[in-house]
Amino acid sequence: MYGMIVKVTAVSGQRQSLISILLTGTGEMSGCLSYIVAKDFLDENAIWITEIWDSKASHDASLSLPSVKGAIAKAKPLIAVFGTPVVTTPVGGHGLQSAQNH
Amino acid sequence: MYGMIVKVTAVSGQRQSLISILLTGTGEMSGCLSYIVAKDFLDENAIWITEIWDSKASHDASLSLPSVKGAIAKAKPLIAVFGTPVVTTPVGGHGLQSAQNH
Repeated sequence: MYGMIVKVTAVSGQRQSLISILLTGTGEMSGCLSYIVAKDFLDENAIWITEIWDSKASHDASLSLPSVKGAIAKAKPLIAVFGTPVVTTPVGGHGLQSAQNH
Repeated sequence: MYGMIVKVTAVSGQRQSLISILLTGTGEMSGCLSYIVAKDFLDENAIWITEIWDSKASHDASLSLPSVKGAIAKAKPLIAVFGTPVVTTPVGGHGLQSAQNH
C-alpha cells in the first residue's frame, strides 16, 4: 500500500470552495482505498488530505485522469501553500478493510 | 466528525513492535470510523496514526477502554517522541462512507 498525508493552505476565505472541488473531482479513482479531506481545527484556511492507495502506480496514474486533472486546474488558483507531502506505507487498522471492499 | 493526525517516533528498532501493539489494542472502539497506522517512508522509526471519530466525545471515551489503556501502557516504553497531534474536522471523501458502515 501507498499513503500520503499533505497539508494544503487555501487562499484566505477560499477553503470551502477548495474542499468542494477536491471532493467532486476525486470520486472514482482506480486503486484508491481511501481519500479523506479534513479541515484543520485551528487554521481556518488549512485542510489535510489523507490518501491510501493499493500502490504508488495507482496514485501516479490517477494524476492523468481527466476528472483529477480538471480538479487540479480548478483548485490551483485557490491554493496559497501546498505542503510537502508525507509519504507512508499503511500497514493496517480499522476502516481500511471497509475501504478496500468499497 | 473529529479527526487526528499524529506522528509517533519509536525507540530505535522498535517500530514494528509498536505497530503490533497499536493494531491489537484498538480493534473495537465505539464511534471510531477509521484508525489507520502507517509507516513513514523516509524515517525508519516513525509512524503516522490517522483517526476519524463520529465525535470528540467518542475519541475521549476510547481512552478509558481497558484494551486501549493496556495498549498505551505497553506502547509507552517503545515511544521516543509523541508528536503534537493535528486535530481536524473530516468533511468527506472516498473510504469514509465505507468505514461508517463497518
